[in-house]
Amino acid sequence: MSTLTIALDIMGGDHGPPVILDATLKAIRTHSDCQFILCGNQDIISPAIAQLNDAERQRVSVSHCEQVVDMGEPPTSALRNKKQSSMRRILDLVDSGEASACVSAGNTGALLTLAYYQLKTLAGVDRPALVSAMPTASNHKVFLLDLGANVNCTSEILFQYGVMGSVLAQQVEGIESPRVALLNVGEEDIKGNPQVKHADQMFKNAPGINYIGYVEGDQIFTDKADVVVTDGFTGNVALKSSEGLAKLVVHEVRRQSQRNIFTRILGKIALPLLKSIYNRMNPDQYNGASLIGLRGTVIKSHGNASSDAFYYAINQAIQEAQMQVPDKIRTKIETVLLEQL
Amino acid sequence: MSTLTIALDIMGGDHGPPVILDATLKAIRTHSDCQFILCGNQDIISPAIAQLNDAERQRVSVSHCEQVVDMGEPPTSALRNKKQSSMRRILDLVDSGEASACVSAGNTGALLTLAYYQLKTLAGVDRPALVSAMPTASNHKVFLLDLGANVNCTSEILFQYGVMGSVLAQQVEGIESPRVALLNVGEEDIKGNPQVKHADQMFKNAPGINYIGYVEGDQIFTDKADVVVTDGFTGNVALKSSEGLAKLVVHEVRRQSQRNIFTRILGKIALPLLKSIYNRMNPDQYNGASLIGLRGTVIKSHGNASSDAFYYAINQAIQEAQMQVPDKIRTKIETVLLEQL
Repeated sequence: MSTLTIALDIMGGDHGPPVILDATLKAIRTHSDCQFILCGNQDIISPAIAQLNDAERQRVSVSHCEQVVDMGEPPTSALRNKKQSSMRRILDLVDSGEASACVSAGNTGALLTLAYYQLKTLAGVDRPALVSAMPTASNHKVFLLDLGANVNCTSEILFQYGVMGSVLAQQVEGIESPRVALLNVGEEDIKGNPQVKHADQMFKNAPGINYIGYVEGDQIFTDKADVVVTDGFTGNVALKSSEGLAKLVVHEVRRQSQRNIFTRILGKIALPLLKSIYNRMNPDQYNGASLIGLRGTVIKSHGNASSDAFYYAINQAIQEAQMQVPDKIRTKIETVLLEQL
Repeated sequence: MSTLTIALDIMGGDHGPPVILDATLKAIRTHSDCQFILCGNQDIISPAIAQLNDAERQRVSVSHCEQVVDMGEPPTSALRNKKQSSMRRILDLVDSGEASACVSAGNTGALLTLAYYQLKTLAGVDRPALVSAMPTASNHKVFLLDLGANVNCTSEILFQYGVMGSVLAQQVEGIESPRVALLNVGEEDIKGNPQVKHADQMFKNAPGINYIGYVEGDQIFTDKADVVVTDGFTGNVALKSSEGLAKLVVHEVRRQSQRNIFTRILGKIALPLLKSIYNRMNPDQYNGASLIGLRGTVIKSHGNASSDAFYYAINQAIQEAQMQVPDKIRTKIETVLLEQL
C-alpha cells in the first residue's frame, strides 16, 4: 500500500489549536507509514512540531493559512470570504490529490458547504451525507445517516444513502453483507411519509443491498441493522436527542448519588463504570463523523472534541483512505444503478 | 366542580384486561369524586368489579362491547369494522358528553384514527397531536409534540401545536407562561426546512405565545423549554431513540456489572438507584400520551403499560378533564388567530 497523506485543520474546534496539535503529534508518532500536512497558522504549528524527532518531522509539512473559519460563521460567508482558511486548504489538498483524506473539528455547516462545493459528489450521488457509528446492545456498531447534511431528502437520496452506508459498514467494520434499514415511525408497510415509502420500494428492488425494511427509533440501538437511513433533519434529532438523554442519565446519577452518605460512596465507586458507559453512549463526542458521497475522504471531528477524540478521528480518516471508501462507493452506486436498468 | 365521568377501554394493551382492570379498581377507589364507565367484555369485567364495595360500585357502570380492536389491526380496518369495539365505545361516550375523558392502552394508530373521525378537531385546529411529558435535568418536565399523529406537518400545523402545547403545559403543570420552542437541527435562523422556518416566523408574530426560538435534539432534556414542537415523524423518532438509548444504558450497566464479583455486588447495590432513574428516563412507558386538539380528552397509555402506568394515565385523564383542556385550547386558538388578523 502506498504512503497516505492526511491533511489536518489545526485551527478548528471549540478548544483551539493546542488540543488539536496534541492529537496530531500523537497521530504522527503512531502512524509512521503516513505523511501529514498541518494546515493553519505556522506561528502556532511550528513550536508544536519542534517536539518531533527528525524522522517524524520528515513526514510532516506545514501549509500556512492566513484565515480561520469561525465556529459560528455562516457557511455562505465561509464559502465566499475564507478562501485562505485552514478548513478550505485541507479540502483543496484532497481535491488536488496531494492528500488522501482530511480531518477538521471546525464549524460543521461550513465544512459541509465547502466540501460539497470543493470536492463535488461522486457520479450517481445527489448529495453527501454525514454518518457516524452509534453503539448497539451487542457491543456492535450501527451506522446512522444522514446526521444533518441535508434536511430535505427525496426517496432517491435516501436510497443513495443506503448504498453509501452499506459500503462504509462493509469497508470499515468488515461486515460482508450489511443489513440496511429505513428509519420510520412504525414497522408496518402502511406507515411513514411518501419519501420513506418510495425509498422502501427502491430498496426492495435493489438486489445488491441487504435491505431488511423499517426500524423505529428505539431499534437503532438494538443491533437489528448495521446501517440506518433517514433524512438529515430526523437523523440529527435522533443523534442529538439520544446524546441529550445520555447526558441526563449521568446528571441524574450524580444528583441521586448526592442524597446521602451511602449513595455518595456508591456514586464514587460506580463512577468509572458509568464513565465507560457514558463514553460508549455519547458517540457524537467520541467518534468522528464521515462525510461520504464526495470525491474524497472528509472526517468531521466533534467541535467539542478532546485530544483523544481528534486522534480517533485521524485514525478514522486513515482507515477510510486505506480502504478507498470513495472509490468503493462510486463502484457500488454504478453497479446498483446498472442493475436497476 | 361537578362529578367527572371517565370512560375506560378495558380490552386494550399488550398484557390484556387483568392489568388494565387492576389499575381501574385502584382508580375507582382513589377517585371517590369520579364516575367510571368500563367498556369491554362484561364477562371479564363483572368478576373484577365484584371486588368493589357497594359505595364504589355505585360510581361504576359497564358498557358491554362485542368487539376488540387488535393491537396489530390497520386503523382503516378498525374504523370500518370495529364499530362495536371498546375503543370505539369510549370515544362515542366522550362524543355524546356521557364521559368527560377516556383512556386506552390499545393500538395507537387505530386510536388516533378513530378519535380523529369520531371526535373531530376543535375549530382552528387542522390535526390533533400526540403529546407526552419528558423528563428534564432540573427535575422539571417538557411537553414534546407531535409524537406521531401526523408525519407530514405544514408550518400552520406546527404553529397550532405550539399553541396547544402551551395551553397543556399551563393547565397541567401550572406554568404561567410556558416557554415554547421549535425543534431544529441548529439554533441559527438560517437552518432548518421551509416548514420549520415559516413556523418560526408565525411564532415570532404571535404575541400570546412565549416563543423562545429553536432548540436542538439534546436541548429537549435541558429544561430550556416547557414545550418543544416538531412534526410527528421527527417527534416519534426523538421519543423512541431516546427511549432506546435509555434501554441501552440499563443493558450496558447489567452487562458491565457481570464482569467480576466486585462489579456484581456493585450492580446489585446500584439497582434501585438505576431503576428509579430508568423510570424517569423512559417516559413513553410511564406517562400516558395526550391526544390534544380534539373536542374531548383522550389519553393513550403505552401498549406495554403496567398496572401503575395505566393508573397514572387515568389520573392524567381526570386532571385534563378537570382543567377542561379542550375548552382552554379552543379559546387560546381563537385568541391567537384573532390577534393575527
